[in-house]
Amino acid sequence: MREPPRAAVLGLGLMGGSIARDLASTGWVVSGWDSDAGTLERAVQAKVVQPLARALEGLEQADLVILAVPVRTAVELLPELAGRISADGVLTDLASTKRTVVSAAVSAGLGKRFVGSHPLTGDHRSGWEASRTGLFEGAPVFITGTGESEEASIERVCGVWRGLGARPKRIGAVEHDRLMAWVSHAPQALSSALGLALDDAGLRRADLGPGGRAMTRLAGSSPAMWADIFIDNSEEVAPVIQSVISRLRSLTGAMERGDVMALKRLLEHSRGWGSDEG
Amino acid sequence: MREPPRAAVLGLGLMGGSIARDLASTGWVVSGWDSDAGTLERAVQAKVVQPLARALEGLEQADLVILAVPVRTAVELLPELAGRISADGVLTDLASTKRTVVSAAVSAGLGKRFVGSHPLTGDHRSGWEASRTGLFEGAPVFITGTGESEEASIERVCGVWRGLGARPKRIGAVEHDRLMAWVSHAPQALSSALGLALDDAGLRRADLGPGGRAMTRLAGSSPAMWADIFIDNSEEVAPVIQSVISRLRSLTGAMERGDVMALKRLLEHSRGWGSDEG
Repeated sequence: MREPPRAAVLGLGLMGGSIARDLASTGWVVSGWDSDAGTLERAVQAKVVQPLARALEGLEQADLVILAVPVRTAVELLPELAGRISADGVLTDLASTKRTVVSAAVSAGLGKRFVGSHPLTGDHRSGWEASRTGLFEGAPVFITGTGESEEASIERVCGVWRGLGARPKRIGAVEHDRLMAWVSHAPQALSSALGLALDDAGLRRADLGPGGRAMTRLAGSSPAMWADIFIDNSEEVAPVIQSVISRLRSLTGAMERGDVMALKRLLEHSRGWGSDEG
Repeated sequence: MREPPRAAVLGLGLMGGSIARDLASTGWVVSGWDSDAGTLERAVQAKVVQPLARALEGLEQADLVILAVPVRTAVELLPELAGRISADGVLTDLASTKRTVVSAAVSAGLGKRFVGSHPLTGDHRSGWEASRTGLFEGAPVFITGTGESEEASIERVCGVWRGLGARPKRIGAVEHDRLMAWVSHAPQALSSALGLALDDAGLRRADLGPGGRAMTRLAGSSPAMWADIFIDNSEEVAPVIQSVISRLRSLTGAMERGDVMALKRLLEHSRGWGSDEG
């Protein structure tokens, strides 16, 4: 890479905006783009990024291109980017699912230089206004090769994350999407389903106790972002939801039979997943 | 009531122990009983309670009898208590469901002097060791008459709660149990079902991100207590769970059809139940 190194960040929301701020504050020259002209203008005024020219001219200057857009947009952009990246430029993305984007990179002829990233930050706000330096400090980041990714590309992306204080961890795309379905996507769907049922029954949020509030909290996340994630990973998420439904039926069955012992056994079995934190 | 007023607390776990401590510290003479001899001994040694004699002798001295035992135990105890309560004594309980206990009080001939209580404290620990003064400070307490409860009995129980800093709120037993099924019991079952599914799939708790942790936290609560609650209120809880399952199916259907608009609409609809707290 040249000195100073150059990055292009496409999408300046919470994630893209934060990585742009982190890179700019550690000596990178950052150019940026956002589908919303006002967002791009604010990022330029904040002296975080230089604007990429129309139609992404200037991308060929970048050592690192970061797709910080929803996964469907990333998949649409990849073929357009293929002809514009410099010969030793590397690409990554930040989406919560990896299988589709990795295979789109291969189809676009970018398999060697694309390396997927999925930082686990747990912030539910969104947009440039929510972006900040230090968002990735200490955060685990899943790193997913395309199968064709050059080891040097993977190492370069891991190195960038380490430079931002994050903890990169390599994982296959299929394994990643399956794991996320279990530990993140299905729990999110459960929270939304509970919110929908409560709403349809005419309950009010003020009726909830601490338990009900804990279980509906995630439902407040961005519908647009989650609709994309759910559809992109439906193949993995649907069976997990089915598995939860099957356990709900076991619990309901034991309740209705008045089978205290069976119910206690089931609750004991799941108890290790909970906590006593209140 | 005499001066000093006298209370008998049956069951010295988190709830019973805490109310015994609060009453003792505000001038009541408190006698206590627990099915576990060691617990009773510790409560006596802590100078919180005087022991009730075997077979509950001494109960007739009490102005207020508090059943701080699981709802099934309360239902079994009520007929035994009927002959032992003083002519102007009042009874209450602390269980999370109210319909069964209220009707058991009527069957036992205690309808006029029984008034159900359900304090919402949100503490997931249990046992005498977890009990403490001030647990009910600021807590809402649902107050449920039997239909036969004398107004003076209801007022006396409400007054005791106000004296402990709690906020009594009157509600019918059927309405109470239906509301709890929605806002507390079904969310609890969802958390346990998710824990069961994760466990059966061979995941580990360390795999969870913040969202997954929020959704499994409740699963850590006492299996014995929740088995009782679920069975006692299965008539109300089962349909709520069915309603959540039906919303899970709507979400899954939209995912599998790739119907972004329908999915966004559902997620928007449930969004008001969530929060941005992180």
